[in-house]
Amino acid sequence: MDKKLKIVTIGGGSGYTPELVKGFITRYDEMPIDELWLVDVEEGAEKLEIIAKLCQKIIDKSGYPIKLMSTLNRREALKDADFVLTQIRAGQLSSRVKDENIPLKYRFVGQETNGPGELLNAFRTIPVMIDICTEMEALCPDAWLINFANPAGMLAEAVLNHTNWEKMISICNGPLNIEHAIADALGVDRKRVFAEFVGLNHLVFAKRILLDGQEVTAFVVDQLVRGEVKIDNPGVSNWDADFLTGIQAIPMSYLQYYWKTDEVIKAEQQAANNEGSRAVVAKRLEKELFSVYADSDLDDVPGILSQRGGAGYSECACDLILSLHTDKRDVQTVNTRNMRAIDNLALSDVVEVNCLITKAGPIPLTTGKLPDALNGLIQQMKAFEKVACEAAVTGDYQKALVAMTINPLVSSDTKAKEILDEMLIANEEYLPQFDLTQLKIKEVIQ
Amino acid sequence: MDKKLKIVTIGGGSGYTPELVKGFITRYDEMPIDELWLVDVEEGAEKLEIIAKLCQKIIDKSGYPIKLMSTLNRREALKDADFVLTQIRAGQLSSRVKDENIPLKYRFVGQETNGPGELLNAFRTIPVMIDICTEMEALCPDAWLINFANPAGMLAEAVLNHTNWEKMISICNGPLNIEHAIADALGVDRKRVFAEFVGLNHLVFAKRILLDGQEVTAFVVDQLVRGEVKIDNPGVSNWDADFLTGIQAIPMSYLQYYWKTDEVIKAEQQAANNEGSRAVVAKRLEKELFSVYADSDLDDVPGILSQRGGAGYSECACDLILSLHTDKRDVQTVNTRNMRAIDNLALSDVVEVNCLITKAGPIPLTTGKLPDALNGLIQQMKAFEKVACEAAVTGDYQKALVAMTINPLVSSDTKAKEILDEMLIANEEYLPQFDLTQLKIKEVIQ
Amino acid sequence: MDKKLKIVTIGGGSGYTPELVKGFITRYDEMPIDELWLVDVEEGAEKLEIIAKLCQKIIDKSGYPIKLMSTLNRREALKDADFVLTQIRAGQLSSRVKDENIPLKYRFVGQETNGPGELLNAFRTIPVMIDICTEMEALCPDAWLINFANPAGMLAEAVLNHTNWEKMISICNGPLNIEHAIADALGVDRKRVFAEFVGLNHLVFAKRILLDGQEVTAFVVDQLVRGEVKIDNPGVSNWDADFLTGIQAIPMSYLQYYWKTDEVIKAEQQAANNEGSRAVVAKRLEKELFSVYADSDLDDVPGILSQRGGAGYSECACDLILSLHTDKRDVQTVNTRNMRAIDNLALSDVVEVNCLITKAGPIPLTTGKLPDALNGLIQQMKAFEKVACEAAVTGDYQKALVAMTINPLVSSDTKAKEILDEMLIANEEYLPQFDLTQLKIKEVIQ
Amino acid sequence: MDKKLKIVTIGGGSGYTPELVKGFITRYDEMPIDELWLVDVEEGAEKLEIIAKLCQKIIDKSGYPIKLMSTLNRREALKDADFVLTQIRAGQLSSRVKDENIPLKYRFVGQETNGPGELLNAFRTIPVMIDICTEMEALCPDAWLINFANPAGMLAEAVLNHTNWEKMISICNGPLNIEHAIADALGVDRKRVFAEFVGLNHLVFAKRILLDGQEVTAFVVDQLVRGEVKIDNPGVSNWDADFLTGIQAIPMSYLQYYWKTDEVIKAEQQAANNEGSRAVVAKRLEKELFSVYADSDLDDVPGILSQRGGAGYSECACDLILSLHTDKRDVQTVNTRNMRAIDNLALSDVVEVNCLITKAGPIPLTTGKLPDALNGLIQQMKAFEKVACEAAVTGDYQKALVAMTINPLVSSDTKAKEILDEMLIANEEYLPQFDLTQLKIKEVIQ
Repeated sequence: MDKKLKIVTIGGGSGYTPELVKGFITRYDEMPIDELWLVDVEEGAEKLEIIAKLCQKIIDKSGYPIKLMSTLNRREALKDADFVLTQIRAGQLSSRVKDENIPLKYRFVGQETNGPGELLNAFRTIPVMIDICTEMEALCPDAWLINFANPAGMLAEAVLNHTNWEKMISICNGPLNIEHAIADALGVDRKRVFAEFVGLNHLVFAKRILLDGQEVTAFVVDQLVRGEVKIDNPGVSNWDADFLTGIQAIPMSYLQYYWKTDEVIKAEQQAANNEGSRAVVAKRLEKELFSVYADSDLDDVPGILSQRGGAGYSECACDLILSLHTDKRDVQTVNTRNMRAIDNLALSDVVEVNCLITKAGPIPLTTGKLPDALNGLIQQMKAFEKVACEAAVTGDYQKALVAMTINPLVSSDTKAKEILDEMLIANEEYLPQFDLTQLKIKEVIQ
Repeated sequence: MDKKLKIVTIGGGSGYTPELVKGFITRYDEMPIDELWLVDVEEGAEKLEIIAKLCQKIIDKSGYPIKLMSTLNRREALKDADFVLTQIRAGQLSSRVKDENIPLKYRFVGQETNGPGELLNAFRTIPVMIDICTEMEALCPDAWLINFANPAGMLAEAVLNHTNWEKMISICNGPLNIEHAIADALGVDRKRVFAEFVGLNHLVFAKRILLDGQEVTAFVVDQLVRGEVKIDNPGVSNWDADFLTGIQAIPMSYLQYYWKTDEVIKAEQQAANNEGSRAVVAKRLEKELFSVYADSDLDDVPGILSQRGGAGYSECACDLILSLHTDKRDVQTVNTRNMRAIDNLALSDVVEVNCLITKAGPIPLTTGKLPDALNGLIQQMKAFEKVACEAAVTGDYQKALVAMTINPLVSSDTKAKEILDEMLIANEEYLPQFDLTQLKIKEVIQ
Repeated sequence: MDKKLKIVTIGGGSGYTPELVKGFITRYDEMPIDELWLVDVEEGAEKLEIIAKLCQKIIDKSGYPIKLMSTLNRREALKDADFVLTQIRAGQLSSRVKDENIPLKYRFVGQETNGPGELLNAFRTIPVMIDICTEMEALCPDAWLINFANPAGMLAEAVLNHTNWEKMISICNGPLNIEHAIADALGVDRKRVFAEFVGLNHLVFAKRILLDGQEVTAFVVDQLVRGEVKIDNPGVSNWDADFLTGIQAIPMSYLQYYWKTDEVIKAEQQAANNEGSRAVVAKRLEKELFSVYADSDLDDVPGILSQRGGAGYSECACDLILSLHTDKRDVQTVNTRNMRAIDNLALSDVVEVNCLITKAGPIPLTTGKLPDALNGLIQQMKAFEKVACEAAVTGDYQKALVAMTINPLVSSDTKAKEILDEMLIANEEYLPQFDLTQLKIKEVIQ
Repeated sequence: MDKKLKIVTIGGGSGYTPELVKGFITRYDEMPIDELWLVDVEEGAEKLEIIAKLCQKIIDKSGYPIKLMSTLNRREALKDADFVLTQIRAGQLSSRVKDENIPLKYRFVGQETNGPGELLNAFRTIPVMIDICTEMEALCPDAWLINFANPAGMLAEAVLNHTNWEKMISICNGPLNIEHAIADALGVDRKRVFAEFVGLNHLVFAKRILLDGQEVTAFVVDQLVRGEVKIDNPGVSNWDADFLTGIQAIPMSYLQYYWKTDEVIKAEQQAANNEGSRAVVAKRLEKELFSVYADSDLDDVPGILSQRGGAGYSECACDLILSLHTDKRDVQTVNTRNMRAIDNLALSDVVEVNCLITKAGPIPLTTGKLPDALNGLIQQMKAFEKVACEAAVTGDYQKALVAMTINPLVSSDTKAKEILDEMLIANEEYLPQFDLTQLKIKEVIQ
């Protein structure tokens, strides 16, 4: 217990990092960090510098003896780490722009964690995650890898079922935000609420809600139907009252991509024609954010961050690290192997469910069988994820095409092929696993 | 064994009946039928008369002592039956026209066994099937109910999991046609081919193909990819070569509704604008067919029937009845309870798989786990079917809406509601289980 | 939350009650009890009076305003209860004497929670539990039923799978004692130990042991092998070192009945010939205990109690009630429906596993697949329990015989029948569900 | 199809071989064998010569052009084989004597396919089977391995789950004999009977019996109870009427070892004291048999063989080979991977169930969930088998001890160790996988 605590953040130049640092400071008494390393890639060097300066000021202000280091040398940072956080974006926001804009041309959902964009995002990010795991095996074999890069569920699926690395957890602020929203709507402290989450990352449902241990699911659904509760991350979730009453569960806002597809595509197209797609807006916001961050007087997280979305990531990440570190045994919702928490899925399938967080890792809580109304889509997306991970790991083009075609947001094998080919070529520099020679020749010929 | 054999065909006025009668005649030596009853509803009285006359001539020509009766009194026919065949269409072809045309207005697939049309078809037909089962319990409790009405899988799901009637099997000529096509492509007799089918009705795959017991799946997939084999019922199945190679299975042609959705909708819209939707064409063909049938010289099944689709239904139905009757213990592909033939589905879920046909009913053959590439869609459709059956049996509007929304061919809860409301009202006379008062008031108000 | 808290103890005249009262007093600040009712049957009236007097003195000494009532009228006590504790022994210690002595005559294990004795104990106790549940439905439908009567696992199996009562948990101090023993052996506070228990009541294993979140299973097994740790309730557990190392799990001491059968029978026979069977000794101890309890100066639990076994029951029961009452969400090991916590058993099978204790009840934590070495016996005993519960609920003699024969401690169907017949007749007055007329005639004739 | 058919029998010097040859002759028209090789080990050279001479005369008499070769060179025989039959006994009858006599000393069942004898038999035979598979990979990679050596179920478990060899099936005449007995009792041809077998080798039950497709299970159970049907291989099966009625299934006669343990041990002890154990008797019978076989006038299977037990092995083996060779697709009961034929066991667990026999191998027929009454013992024995196979393959002493202890016929870990040690040393020359140095030193010291 006397061992010094070393935390490494890969993608440390992210605009979320200052919030994370504040989270660590808040929990310093329970979890005194000795070293906090911020790592980034060459392309992010400038941002990393700005972030590192701001974080140093925030730490200085706190008075805690946390040593902050920033580096572009990932291996140096990983050496003897206790916790490694990944908040990377393979291909930066420019790739996200492609994830959003190319699908829209085909009248498909354009989004980095759903549809064709999700698949390409996975293809870009999985090789990076595998590299990190390989380095961790050598440099910090006892560390936990806490990922909040997207697509978080698939990254966990890939690491836990396609590498030897075991100590990996993916997290998302979605479930936490739903719990907060429910608590707000009920006018109670969040700790009194217990929401049983089932599903996959960005495809999760609160299927049973307890208030002080009393079942209040039907009441909350009713509140939501009447508009008394609002639960959205980014985006609309004005579910039809009869539909929501019919499923008797609170869907995470991203479910709109599947059950409000037409509306989403329309809204995305309008946005693209006006202020630009989400990634374009994010790019703009990020620019503003970093100009504020660069302000030499700033020594705190500025209000502007909240417009970026992702509020709560710091709370999620810090709470998880704290519970892992202190063997706290509280319940948090994370992405880990199912172990039959959900009866309908395999033991090894990665799911997003409530877990007891022990120092030895998350232990999923049982939830029984999924209702049929939820099971269909969850199964379909898990099947997609598994085929996609195989394609991402092997670089097998036919598997990639199968993944694209069976994605419920893609409407035909022919279009799947067109969009896959276009997106593979557009992302070429981040896809070392795929051999695109043939595709490019074909393109030239056409 | 001396008991007289009585077979009853409900929907006996169908244009397929003469072929069925020929099938019985061909198998007379193994299965000597004493009485063959043709039953139909009032609206079908005229057609029934034409069919009965033609069938009588076919029987007379055969020389076999089969007694043919036709009646509009179903209960009279069912008394002491040994086999009851259902080839009904609740709401006749006019309802099918709605199943096809209303969805198309919303740019959804318009088809009586897929998408919104399938749901309404199930809502209309399930109550009729339940009535038939109730009557059979009283009038012929030892008989087998062999259904080839659509949606065949859901009708079996509804009967086997929502009534007490156990002796029910749904069949479809799809698997048989695929086996025939494979045999033709390989230039061998069908008996030498063994195709392992997995999935649901109209959502079935040949996932393993043996020729004389040798695995030839990859070879046949390759043949299909090269266009050497053609496997289609109605419609296109020009699967992308890489996609098909990726899934390593032969999809039933109806898979086009899910994996060539755009192309299908386009083709349907073109057809609707030109020759009319499939149901309109079928109506026309039926008219022609019955004018041919009514020809007093005819004493055989005319060639024109084959244009109607559904070739092979007679072979399926007669082979099944023969094997049940004689305890033949051969392998046929039918819709029955899973019993874990498919590891990923529940014991009681109705599936379309290979079964040993004994006199005591079908015993499914194990097939192991579904490949991920197929599992997603199969799970989703099974979940849809289960919610849909619950809605059909209870008349619960919210469940009906959930079913409509989670159908993979419907793109949003809002549109699901619009189309559900329109189709419920359009089918009102065939939906005694639903209380549509509110809906109709709403419609008037708008 | 202002509601007054009422706890009812059925079998309140038990010698364990004073300890329980002390447990409530210790936790009074978190869980202020208003009324504590002690209920017993006519035969226990005298003991109940002694216990009630002692408990009143203990309460008086504590200074807390807990109202104590004792009654022979169970319905009066149950009215509006919040928690109902059952610590009954159907047929008192005299029946336990039979559970122990009759099997010994056949050279079978004689024990009230294993072998033939367990079966008869279940047959006597299940009808009483079902009666209690029926009364609770009417008188206190929101209360929790916390059972520590034996056979605890089977009583939960019977209530949860053969009645409509849902809010029932069976507990046993076995797992807690193992955790204490491990903590003692490691020289640490129990809270730092986390043992993953899997199995059934009195057939449970600690299959994974964490110390501060570090896996130490192999180390603890090794300690046990070397005799550094001792883990026994009643009885010997000197497992063979190679065997224990082979299974890599800590078996609850009652496993000796299955894996040290010969030694146990020998020891039981010796005891029976000397100091008397366990029940005889317990009777004697109880007599002594009650003469001490009756001492008018006593106002605390006397040391003598610990000789009785069952230490820790009070800790178990009070901790569970506290967590249920306060929605504490800590982890405790209880008997509840599996929900696939153990992958090899059905969702509804009652198991003894770690659960998160919420106000809405226990939520089992997943444990994955059982190792083969443990799975065989656990499956066999669960199968036995299920057949036994069916026999207990229906009074079906043939099922009772099947249960007796498939019990792994009974060696043949013929002997099973002999012993079953003898024990049924010996327990007749407590077995209203069985019709023993035939058996008794047979006995007379012989 | 023109390829010449070569069959190899390992353990060809067995007394059963002439019957097998007759079986091949009977089926010659459907399956014309070109070469039949008899292989044996050095110790069996003399018997092999006698058998080969007799078989040659039987073939000559038949007039079919089957070439018979006998050899001690297994590799020579295996080259290009189509079917390899194993009817070996590792350690000959002398080892079987130990399997029977050593356990009896401990008052355990002494039998080569149950209890300690089974475990040691598996330890001796599994390495030989693995060697054969390795040779087949090199010499006849397309051949089927048909095993009827004991313990047949465990040999299949070991080959199918611990080697790369896939084309292996174990068979036993037990199920066939039960079907024959049922048919005899009902006075009908066996083909009209369909018995659904579930379980493991030598632990199998007919749980559903159809006559001409009518369920007659209850009737047959009742017949058995009344003594109208007799179903025994070797040994007694006078099940208690209430017990048998309670389980509603026909247990294979070997179930007596588990549910009539006391009676069996008593009978075995009596036999050992009188005519000698089964192996001793078998040795004597074998001697007589071979002296008859050696008679130069004999050119047929003599009547004496039937006293040896094992009648029907030839029918089983020949029928299976015929169906595999001709892709017959009939139903036979064999030992193969479960594939969820039995819902309660894993996909890969080897079970004895009804299968459709295709040229590509057996496809198990689904049977649903096991009744609780049967599930317990089947699970326990499957768990035992799996631990035993791991021990047999790895030579891990602790696993061997766990296997011995969890066997339901062994009553304590201490005795398990004693008997294991004694039997390991007694079988030393056939156990290359175990390092027994320590054990032998210990023995010397004592």
